[in-house]
Amino acid sequence: MPKVTEEHRAARRDQILRAALRCVAAEGFHKTTMGSVIRESGLSAGAVYLYFRSKQDLIRAIAETAVSGIADTVDELAAADDVVPPVEAVTTVLRRLLEMSDELGVEIPRLSVQAWAEAGRDPEIQQLLSGEAGRIRQAWISYAGRAIEAGYVDAGAGEVESVAETLMAMVPGFMLFRIVLGSDVSPERYTSGLAALLR
Amino acid sequence: MPKVTEEHRAARRDQILRAALRCVAAEGFHKTTMGSVIRESGLSAGAVYLYFRSKQDLIRAIAETAVSGIADTVDELAAADDVVPPVEAVTTVLRRLLEMSDELGVEIPRLSVQAWAEAGRDPEIQQLLSGEAGRIRQAWISYAGRAIEAGYVDAGAGEVESVAETLMAMVPGFMLFRIVLGSDVSPERYTSGLAALLR
Repeated sequence: MPKVTEEHRAARRDQILRAALRCVAAEGFHKTTMGSVIRESGLSAGAVYLYFRSKQDLIRAIAETAVSGIADTVDELAAADDVVPPVEAVTTVLRRLLEMSDELGVEIPRLSVQAWAEAGRDPEIQQLLSGEAGRIRQAWISYAGRAIEAGYVDAGAGEVESVAETLMAMVPGFMLFRIVLGSDVSPERYTSGLAALLR
Repeated sequence: MPKVTEEHRAARRDQILRAALRCVAAEGFHKTTMGSVIRESGLSAGAVYLYFRSKQDLIRAIAETAVSGIADTVDELAAADDVVPPVEAVTTVLRRLLEMSDELGVEIPRLSVQAWAEAGRDPEIQQLLSGEAGRIRQAWISYAGRAIEAGYVDAGAGEVESVAETLMAMVPGFMLFRIVLGSDVSPERYTSGLAALLR
């Protein structure tokens, strides 16, 4: 049996994850099966099951991939030496969302609405997404605390969470605009209205 | 053949529409069939096809029902003698959304994510929703114009549309919070962060 390096394993896992992402974006979580992911990946069933034992495993990995990218970006904004104003923070996250879509070869907005629809139907997925959304929420709370400290937002200590939630809620709004109104809605265009409101 | 009154026809149509709403909320647009709506309605296939000739007809009627409630509410806000501030306008729309959910016997947030997921997959549904979203957008543009006039928002004439879009985007954000984070997120709690940001 050939020796499998860590690097090889990571690349294999990534190959399967990308195949799963394409399946879900095209068909939705509901219709995606281990069989369709195996076909899309071009690997053998045995190879795929070595990395992901079930569809549930795959869904978890997909949610973690998409959420990590967003949560890490917000964490960086919160940890920056010079914290940026709210409109710039939201714009940065939206830009990162589009970059991630390019990197993964799948539109995150399209993938996300599939996940939300599934969460509305399946309590297990709802639990999973709720946990992941909690990570993003925590990151926005860190950012909101610093934005208030810096004087960008005139809010009391008891309002940090609701300010964080409002900024967080701007992101799904953008994804929907992209899906329903068309992909010519840019991050800058989308946040210009928030800029006017916060003036 | 008995004479069918207009009133009877409207009640029948409503009965079928509600059955379809329950099917879509439970199963998604994708899995809902004319057969499942017929079963859920308790009527004969012939009776159902008299009102809706296809699944497409039903989906259109569902989208129009949900969208009209929102668009009408925003139109009223825009036409009011005393225009209310933006936070109050968004809160009013979110409250109306929950009232409509009670009236229709189906959670509009849950229904909406099903529709968005379908729009990401099916260009015909995307076109339909895009048109309906356009109606809501127009209503928010009318409101934003008046809010700027009234001095609630410090924006130029060229910014009316983007202010309208930002306020509009707050609504799907709320629906997602209800689905992903749980239904204890109230309209007032959700908009308190916007209130702090606009202070």
